[in-house]
Amino acid sequence: MGKINRRTFLGASAVAGSTALSGEAAAADDSSEVTRILARYIVSAKPDDIPAAVKKEATRTLLNWTGCAIGGSRQPAVDNAIAALTPFAGTGQASILGRMERLDALNASLINGISSHVLDFDDTHLRTIIHPAGPVASAILALSEYQPVSGLEFLTALVLGIEVECRIGNAVYPEHYDAGWHITGTTGPFGAAAAVGRLLHLSEQQMTWALGLAAVQPVGLREMFGSMTKSFHPGRAAQNGFTAAVLASKNFTSSEHGIEAKSGWANVLSTARRYNEITGKLGQTYEVALNTYKPFACGIVGHPIIDGCIQLRDENRLKALDVARIDLWVNPLVVELMGKRSPKAGLEGKFSVYHAAAVAITEGAAGEQQFTDRAVQRSETADLRDRVFTTIDKNLHEDQARIRITLRDGRTLDKTVVHAVGSVTRPMSDRQLEQKFEGLATGILPADRVRRVIDLCWRIESLPGVASLASAATLQAA
Amino acid sequence: MGKINRRTFLGASAVAGSTALSGEAAAADDSSEVTRILARYIVSAKPDDIPAAVKKEATRTLLNWTGCAIGGSRQPAVDNAIAALTPFAGTGQASILGRMERLDALNASLINGISSHVLDFDDTHLRTIIHPAGPVASAILALSEYQPVSGLEFLTALVLGIEVECRIGNAVYPEHYDAGWHITGTTGPFGAAAAVGRLLHLSEQQMTWALGLAAVQPVGLREMFGSMTKSFHPGRAAQNGFTAAVLASKNFTSSEHGIEAKSGWANVLSTARRYNEITGKLGQTYEVALNTYKPFACGIVGHPIIDGCIQLRDENRLKALDVARIDLWVNPLVVELMGKRSPKAGLEGKFSVYHAAAVAITEGAAGEQQFTDRAVQRSETADLRDRVFTTIDKNLHEDQARIRITLRDGRTLDKTVVHAVGSVTRPMSDRQLEQKFEGLATGILPADRVRRVIDLCWRIESLPGVASLASAATLQAA
Repeated sequence: MGKINRRTFLGASAVAGSTALSGEAAAADDSSEVTRILARYIVSAKPDDIPAAVKKEATRTLLNWTGCAIGGSRQPAVDNAIAALTPFAGTGQASILGRMERLDALNASLINGISSHVLDFDDTHLRTIIHPAGPVASAILALSEYQPVSGLEFLTALVLGIEVECRIGNAVYPEHYDAGWHITGTTGPFGAAAAVGRLLHLSEQQMTWALGLAAVQPVGLREMFGSMTKSFHPGRAAQNGFTAAVLASKNFTSSEHGIEAKSGWANVLSTARRYNEITGKLGQTYEVALNTYKPFACGIVGHPIIDGCIQLRDENRLKALDVARIDLWVNPLVVELMGKRSPKAGLEGKFSVYHAAAVAITEGAAGEQQFTDRAVQRSETADLRDRVFTTIDKNLHEDQARIRITLRDGRTLDKTVVHAVGSVTRPMSDRQLEQKFEGLATGILPADRVRRVIDLCWRIESLPGVASLASAATLQAA
Repeated sequence: MGKINRRTFLGASAVAGSTALSGEAAAADDSSEVTRILARYIVSAKPDDIPAAVKKEATRTLLNWTGCAIGGSRQPAVDNAIAALTPFAGTGQASILGRMERLDALNASLINGISSHVLDFDDTHLRTIIHPAGPVASAILALSEYQPVSGLEFLTALVLGIEVECRIGNAVYPEHYDAGWHITGTTGPFGAAAAVGRLLHLSEQQMTWALGLAAVQPVGLREMFGSMTKSFHPGRAAQNGFTAAVLASKNFTSSEHGIEAKSGWANVLSTARRYNEITGKLGQTYEVALNTYKPFACGIVGHPIIDGCIQLRDENRLKALDVARIDLWVNPLVVELMGKRSPKAGLEGKFSVYHAAAVAITEGAAGEQQFTDRAVQRSETADLRDRVFTTIDKNLHEDQARIRITLRDGRTLDKTVVHAVGSVTRPMSDRQLEQKFEGLATGILPADRVRRVIDLCWRIESLPGVASLASAATLQAA
């Protein structure tokens, strides 16, 4: 049940969309050469061969990741990590998004990786529940301030890094995750090593070593969920993969079979492995095309309810005072995970489907701003919250909900959400991604900076240098 | 067979010596509180409660580790790692043993950890084949240049760090190692986190977090043996544990059950676990007391042969020209692992039992200096090498050998080695450890520095500050 849920969640098409990778005869299925085949592909792939739609999705991934990193940049986990590591860090090299500090590129990749995951609001590769951008983008953005990197090179490295981590994830999911590993932190070093190694122009031989050095540095156990260490995982994965690539660039040797060897990563860290998921159809399919973004800043099971309530509000220009009651028919997990009737603080609001439905009506949104103490304590929202009622319907998937709003004038408004926004089937629009970004960055960056960073993200492919994006996303002088 | 070999190797007493830890009722066997019990012990243990003999063995461990780190400091793995990481490192904070460079303490712990293992000449906890000093000493020596640390504090942290990593190793060995993990790199972060955390005066709560942060950062797969990445494992383990402790010191939170939780370290990284090995008799037994040191700079299976040949040489004042032939009766592994008849280069000499026996007679030693190109190509040694013959005897353990030297005058000299020197049963003497150190450090440090570092190591317990040891072991001005 758990496995099926994770795999089908927010759209079974996430799996269907990538079946081309599995089953059929793979282009290259020599399981004794998995690491080498992958290394060869990473160093030889041509930017022009990546389809425009894939580059576009990578650009959306970048925008979403940047917003999450800025939005998370003032969290205690980030404060504490900076306080702990600054005494040992090199200075001045790379930006910490959303802040004033600059650290060496390796430490910057760690901190930005923490920031981007700490709100649990970053991107998701639904087939493996990897959060792909964190390890990869954190590493290559920091590198882009150490050496000149063009936007096209950056975007290519982002596509390839995500390809590597998600393909390796596909090969071992769900067995590897079920064993207790936090898959973002264990596959992330491969993605970061591939992306950084690409930008460092590693040879094929060096790239096999970089992947070997990534293989020995997995990060993350699921036990840490609920503590700051969870967001440490993608950050450290970025730093580890970055480290692997720079070591390999100086001919620090490793095994050339780090992934597939008997005592290699896949055999040691997973009870099952399907190497054709890694080597099959390389350059023909792209995992970043399957990436998804969370529209709402709470547990994903609440998303269809929020989605439907916002739709009803916008279609009917609803105000809270018009609403007599809201009835929700929901998957059982909703009540289990979001059952708080009367949240008092912002964080509690994330675990209240009653708050989520109410704030969707009163504010027409459910970003970080709608899960603050202010939003939870706002009287209009609190009053409406008490008029929200749930009924469990086991026939509803987690990305489905039925909503009935009864108005004070007696009319009823009904909405059935079959796939919540944010799924592969109903992706967030570019405008919705911008709005999410604005919600995350506003109050942290000045308004003109917010606009400028959004603009730079959209134009990434044509930027002559990516360092301008990194510094724009901070509080440093422009 | 493999398991039994590893466990009994160089003296079955290594296992017998620690049986007090297993079996019988443990003082504290609450498997839901393993991490907390361990954390409480680390923060509350008193230096005065550690027996003098344990402190003495920890001092010998320090001397041996320091010599190995100096001796390995000019290897390509160290050159390459420094070249790769210096551009990103902080500067000036901590010493790189045997060299001129200074880096931030975190990177220094990585580099010194690499140096200390790269010759495969460091200490061994035989029950788990963990190399205990690398992760722990590398971390706390670097910390000692960041903040003042007295010799007694240092020695206490060394004892406790080794205690933690070896106890955790005892709980999962051999299953964890057999799965493919390089156990020094996977248990090392716990040891380093404990030792650094102790010196940072973490609270019990913070220490549980430090152990949790160590749990998510295992390093090392056995696939990497034979590449530079093998020595990266203890170095990165030191750096990871150090990082875990500094994060915890700034209240970066983690699980409080990082070791024993369902998705914690022991369950995810091993098919078996015996928690009473971790929590039983804490403060009553000390794993560092079981530490051993390699007397000879080649594969451990060659050690009884070298040991016996040197004994016969010294007892009979033998010269190579006196010797007509040398016959060796050996365990089958000797011929499998050290079968090279005519080595041409120093490194090949390490895989030649013929060279090992010959050089033991011609030079009366088998340190790094006896496995150089010079030593291998010396004609007197090469001539004698051709007069060495092996016979496999399956009844001999790997730490045993029989030797018969036939002299040109017709006499025969016989020696049976029951336990090679370097085993727990026949430990190296203090003087032998000094000679090993001299062999490693001579040619890297000036002679007066070699003597001074040895002296500082022996006096560690009474040193007012350990930074003086660190800087003495480099090429910096005194």
